[in-house]
Amino acid sequence: STYKIAAIPADGVGTEVVDAGKRVLAALQERHPTFALEWHDFDWGTGYYEQHGRMMPEDGLEQLRGMDAIYFGAVGWPGVPDHVTLWGLRLAICQGFDQWANVRPVTFHPGVPSPIVDAHERELDWVVVRENSEGEYSGFGGRNFGGREGSGEVAVQSAVFTEAGTERIMRFAFDLARTRDRKKVSCVTKSNAQQYGMVLWDDVFARVAQDYPDVETEKVLVDAMAAKFVLRPEDLSVVVATNLHADILSDLGSAMAGSLGLASSANLNPERRTPSMFEPVHGSAPDIAGQGIANPIGAVLSAALMLDHLGHPEEATRLREAVDKATGAGVRTRDVGGAATTEEVVEAIVAGL
Amino acid sequence: STYKIAAIPADGVGTEVVDAGKRVLAALQERHPTFALEWHDFDWGTGYYEQHGRMMPEDGLEQLRGMDAIYFGAVGWPGVPDHVTLWGLRLAICQGFDQWANVRPVTFHPGVPSPIVDAHERELDWVVVRENSEGEYSGFGGRNFGGREGSGEVAVQSAVFTEAGTERIMRFAFDLARTRDRKKVSCVTKSNAQQYGMVLWDDVFARVAQDYPDVETEKVLVDAMAAKFVLRPEDLSVVVATNLHADILSDLGSAMAGSLGLASSANLNPERRTPSMFEPVHGSAPDIAGQGIANPIGAVLSAALMLDHLGHPEEATRLREAVDKATGAGVRTRDVGGAATTEEVVEAIVAGL
Ligand SMILES: CC(C)[C@H](C(=O)O)[C@@H](O)C(=O)O
Ligand SMILES: CC(C)[C@H](C(=O)O)[C@@H](O)C(=O)O
Repeated sequence: STYKIAAIPADGVGTEVVDAGKRVLAALQERHPTFALEWHDFDWGTGYYEQHGRMMPEDGLEQLRGMDAIYFGAVGWPGVPDHVTLWGLRLAICQGFDQWANVRPVTFHPGVPSPIVDAHERELDWVVVRENSEGEYSGFGGRNFGGREGSGEVAVQSAVFTEAGTERIMRFAFDLARTRDRKKVSCVTKSNAQQYGMVLWDDVFARVAQDYPDVETEKVLVDAMAAKFVLRPEDLSVVVATNLHADILSDLGSAMAGSLGLASSANLNPERRTPSMFEPVHGSAPDIAGQGIANPIGAVLSAALMLDHLGHPEEATRLREAVDKATGAGVRTRDVGGAATTEEVVEAIVAGL
Repeated sequence: STYKIAAIPADGVGTEVVDAGKRVLAALQERHPTFALEWHDFDWGTGYYEQHGRMMPEDGLEQLRGMDAIYFGAVGWPGVPDHVTLWGLRLAICQGFDQWANVRPVTFHPGVPSPIVDAHERELDWVVVRENSEGEYSGFGGRNFGGREGSGEVAVQSAVFTEAGTERIMRFAFDLARTRDRKKVSCVTKSNAQQYGMVLWDDVFARVAQDYPDVETEKVLVDAMAAKFVLRPEDLSVVVATNLHADILSDLGSAMAGSLGLASSANLNPERRTPSMFEPVHGSAPDIAGQGIANPIGAVLSAALMLDHLGHPEEATRLREAVDKATGAGVRTRDVGGAATTEEVVEAIVAGL
């Protein structure tokens, strides 16, 4: 089948890694012509913003609506405020298309040094499911004196959790757990210190768990979960957490695997009413942009998540195996202890397909 | 000089480790009679709650007010709700005495296995400064349908930050940095996604930093900081963060050092208007309570923080060195890979004083 894919490389190394991902996908398609991708390229981002005063056109979402998926790079550039780059493009797409489930696998790759003792001997493999539509990043709140020094200012930042939003992410996590070898969901909250939002999470988790008697469960406080990540990661399979908690835990997991440059992510609308978005977890990295040394693996593994979503899990597996062959052969960028360029990593992955 | 110290062992292993700490302090005082402690013991906690319907007497704070310090164990027991044990005692003391600065050192000990590669060869040593009076655990918010299933409930949990509360914790962190070999403060926020409270933190950090031109600074987003903990901990000295962020990061740091059982903590009222409180970071651990196998080191190192606060840094150093001699000699409880009892660890520490 043929799929219409929107490519939005956006800023900094985003353009380099999206290009890398597209080339790997092209090579895969050539060798295994079970699918075809029809690319639609969009030059949105801070460059577009400098010309048009916005990160994407007013009808941006409409232009994307007919796509089968969105393949995204990264946003952010010095001089352009974070809230413009994020809410103007990346979060506008996430929220506009109700991509409420964010999936972030934590995977270890041969040859990539991990800061964790014996990580490679321990068969570590888990996935963080992030609630992507509400919670701590809802944007509610205010400041009463606009930052004026000595004003005795008070700032309120409110997290909003709904029963519906919580229930759907829990069900998503349980359904995902059922597809894995280890059928277990760990639910993260801080319900001993936050009695409203986090107790709602506890309540909904307990209710939903009843519908999945075949899935093992545990409730872990977020501070204890951070400790558990480094002390007993073999005990994890699916970790479901709020927007903020999962943000922290998924970065921690990626770092344990050796680098944020390896981490992939899917922003899903599981009902498939709208296109889902696939992107590396890393940012636009202005400090190394344009040098051809960015790690393309986060983007390549995000392409694998996209193939899964499009219904091509075998092709996704080939992509993952080719990545492991490349890292195992020592073809690694600087962030993971090597000296290879983006191009060399792409070539090694393509050779292993 | 003689100090009046309130001992509140409270629940579970709290009683065992406070007892251990008191014995180590008694031995230290005997060998180095530069100070004397006058203990005042309080039997507050869930046992007291079961008899009196509250965790401490109504005039509990008044009973403590004349003390030079409070030496605390841990609260929590199955069947008694968290909010009762926490807000009824531990947080009642923190808040009642405006212990707004929580100091949590991350220290590595010889012979204690760390999950981090080469941790012992890397001279890792940093301290998390936690804002202890406001922020995400302020307790504001609500639920509109009290947890009723299918009600379409919304829960709001609000974090409250004040300019005054933020400024004092920043100044505290900078002052602390000045006392350390590496004069550096890393300020943790999530100001790219939370524009009210976290931007207030950024603003105040920038202002306060101007008064400390001799102290190096960095701003790190909380997700990136979790990654930095495991990837580049040698780059850390003082890490200042909100109540929630520091809660997570300090547990992560303790786990990196091998166990939460080693972690110590000071809840300070830096103006010394009220007594400060010293306690291990671990909880009451009902699963191992009463077995004599709890790790006493978190409590012993909290006693060292108490000696620092009372103006006896040399004695505090002796205590720390004796702890390292004990762990280095292989006398370790189960949580850190040994088989020693609490008693055996206490004896080893006392022998090393
Ligand atoms: C028990 C809980 C409320 C507490 C906290 O977060 O303050 C604990 O996690 C800690 O870190 O001391
Ligand atoms: C840039 C930031 C708002 C973003 C997030 O927290 O969503 C990032 O940290 C991530 O994890 O994708």
